[in-house]
Amino acid sequence: MLKLFFGPGSCALASHLALEEAGAAYEAVRLSLRDGEQRKPEYLAINPKGRVPALVTDRGVLTENPAILLYIAQTHPQADLAPLDDPSALARMQAFNSYLCATVHVAHAHGARWADEASSIADMKRKVPETMAACFDLIEREMLAGPWVMGQRFSTADPYLYTLSRWLKGDGVEVARFPKVAEHMRLMEARPATAKVLPLHQ
Amino acid sequence: MLKLFFGPGSCALASHLALEEAGAAYEAVRLSLRDGEQRKPEYLAINPKGRVPALVTDRGVLTENPAILLYIAQTHPQADLAPLDDPSALARMQAFNSYLCATVHVAHAHGARWADEASSIADMKRKVPETMAACFDLIEREMLAGPWVMGQRFSTADPYLYTLSRWLKGDGVEVARFPKVAEHMRLMEARPATAKVLPLHQ
Repeated sequence: MLKLFFGPGSCALASHLALEEAGAAYEAVRLSLRDGEQRKPEYLAINPKGRVPALVTDRGVLTENPAILLYIAQTHPQADLAPLDDPSALARMQAFNSYLCATVHVAHAHGARWADEASSIADMKRKVPETMAACFDLIEREMLAGPWVMGQRFSTADPYLYTLSRWLKGDGVEVARFPKVAEHMRLMEARPATAKVLPLHQ
Repeated sequence: MLKLFFGPGSCALASHLALEEAGAAYEAVRLSLRDGEQRKPEYLAINPKGRVPALVTDRGVLTENPAILLYIAQTHPQADLAPLDDPSALARMQAFNSYLCATVHVAHAHGARWADEASSIADMKRKVPETMAACFDLIEREMLAGPWVMGQRFSTADPYLYTLSRWLKGDGVEVARFPKVAEHMRLMEARPATAKVLPLHQ
């Protein structure tokens, strides 16, 4: 059985929601990121990156949301979570997920990892609302077809976008500035998978 | 015909090498990133992100290396650049490419995008050798099977890793610290595709 390691408030919510949407048989294991459980030897033996999500499968451990999401879609074809046989559409979905992991997540996460001085870290944190708003501006204008990321078809990009949209408020950005994103959050929150998984991430 | 927009010294080299390895019919268009051509209206109409690479196809514009690389592999199956029918192996390839785009590229690129004060930007730049070395340490120990990223099989992860390995020297990190990465660079440089494409990126 698949085993997903996650931490509350983390981007692992995306993979967790996708497992639920896929109707996968899985177990979810919660780590306390605040207590640094992701950097303890037991977990580093599973994922040497010391990050979540990690998905333990019978053929090894998978990491990184864009890869795990594609894996879930490919191994649960009946859930139709990705346009697997349409290279153009699949590339658009993967490009969206890449943008989330390489640009939006990074804009949100600025802190001690990339500088040493307290003043630099404070400077980076001050800039988070500006860079996050710029990312969601682009998503709203150019990337979110609506109602779902890919238009009428629900895909792995939807739980992933929802996961990062949830960070806006804490980052000091009003979701209401982005009407399509706000509507996307509302639609995601109406799904049974979200209702089931979200309480575990509080 | 496919049209790839790239800039010298950028991560677009990965997609350019993959097109060449795939035997694709394509045109490569060089932008001067130093002159800001990627932020001019003509280019923003193609890629609103104002970044490279962008791959213009007859079904729209694709962005983000991990997505473009998968697209090239899927549309040129004879080149066998990805384990398309093996979800576990494909997820490992995509996880590797996600790590390159979301962690290694970010470690390299630290600068004005994420802070305002000159002192913060200088602080971030001082930390680049440390974070890049930590990334390549993990790649050397845990991620690069050797001789290729996926072991005996060449894949899209190889031109992408090579592209980012080339940044180490300029970032003040000795490639020789990572023997498997150094050997991977040597193998990549012996390939005809690399010999053909690299001069265009100088």
